[in-house]
Amino acid sequence: MEPVLYYSPGAASLVVHWLLLELGAPHRLHLVDTSTGAQKAPDYLALNPNGVVPTLVLDGVPRFEAAALLMTLADRDPQHRFAPAIDDPQRAEYQQWMFHLANAVQPLFRQWWYPNEPAGEALAETVRANVAPRIEACWERLDAQLAKQGPYLLGDRLTAADFYLAMLMRWSRGMPRPATQWPHLAAFAQMMRARPMFAELYAREGLTEWANAPAAQTA
Amino acid sequence: MEPVLYYSPGAASLVVHWLLLELGAPHRLHLVDTSTGAQKAPDYLALNPNGVVPTLVLDGVPRFEAAALLMTLADRDPQHRFAPAIDDPQRAEYQQWMFHLANAVQPLFRQWWYPNEPAGEALAETVRANVAPRIEACWERLDAQLAKQGPYLLGDRLTAADFYLAMLMRWSRGMPRPATQWPHLAAFAQMMRARPMFAELYAREGLTEWANAPAAQTA
Repeated sequence: MEPVLYYSPGAASLVVHWLLLELGAPHRLHLVDTSTGAQKAPDYLALNPNGVVPTLVLDGVPRFEAAALLMTLADRDPQHRFAPAIDDPQRAEYQQWMFHLANAVQPLFRQWWYPNEPAGEALAETVRANVAPRIEACWERLDAQLAKQGPYLLGDRLTAADFYLAMLMRWSRGMPRPATQWPHLAAFAQMMRARPMFAELYAREGLTEWANAPAAQTA
Repeated sequence: MEPVLYYSPGAASLVVHWLLLELGAPHRLHLVDTSTGAQKAPDYLALNPNGVVPTLVLDGVPRFEAAALLMTLADRDPQHRFAPAIDDPQRAEYQQWMFHLANAVQPLFRQWWYPNEPAGEALAETVRANVAPRIEACWERLDAQLAKQGPYLLGDRLTAADFYLAMLMRWSRGMPRPATQWPHLAAFAQMMRARPMFAELYAREGLTEWANAPAAQTA
């Protein structure tokens, strides 16, 4: 049974879609039209009571939480080496970064994208002004990590955590200080966006923003 | 080399401490006095640049993110069966709940405990009023999950995710509608708090609030 990914272009489903492509894993896509609130419709809530994308129907069972899906997909296909094995000394480090992105970075973007939630619509701009420097502080620390031990989060080793980081960096593209203003993060973005499956992902989701310049792609 | 847990009583370090006790794992505790801002002091930031507890020094390396530490500790001690093995059909479900708590539930508590962050000190009460129903919506969904397939998040099977859930429920004890107002969550709390290592944890961290009534403990 092929996995079915419920997605919306550019949303948190993007990283699951990207990893499916990188793994060469057969799958089907099901568009959730978030512009009409389809993620809150009863048929979708029956799959994912949280009313957000992604949902991945895996072995016939709907599963949610993008980062968990990444870990599951990576662990199930050890040949691609996108996750250190359970007995690998770098497993703890891998899990640390997966949870750091899920717990400390991604939730700040919820305040950026839905600034009405913490204090109401009238204070949306105040919330955005407050959350921007907190997201920048994340980039500062992540850039320092890549400076210390790059070019990936686990050093020389590309893992699912890097795809996750790239997606979150992409979300900062319209912010006052996007992640690519930090030098090691910029080099990281360049490298991740040069992957052939990134172009494939963009074609399939109909995305154009936050791509490498053509010259850089052929360099 | 014994792991060293940098903790503050009742903070997110609690669940790591609890699991260390449940595993019978030798460890040392190092108190971080958050009342004086010790988590932002240079010596602590050298261990954990995020300036939060917990940090667990494991094999001589400082590691952060409570949920990642739980997964690592549980995976390293398969005899205690606090995590489905990597090839277990319930592994995906386990990871889903770990990330759901880390990504969708715990970050809302950050707004509850630090309500000044999203929109400034003057709007702290507005932020608290807005986040309370969002946390309640989490309890509603988690209660429905336990109703459907309890008494633990993975049904009959106790995992590290349950200790994590219990800690987050504890954080709601002073809220307008604490998690224990939901019946399946209340039964879950009763069961988790009846564990001998919960009493041990409370003794070691000097905690008293959110314990089972004495009668229930001896029942």
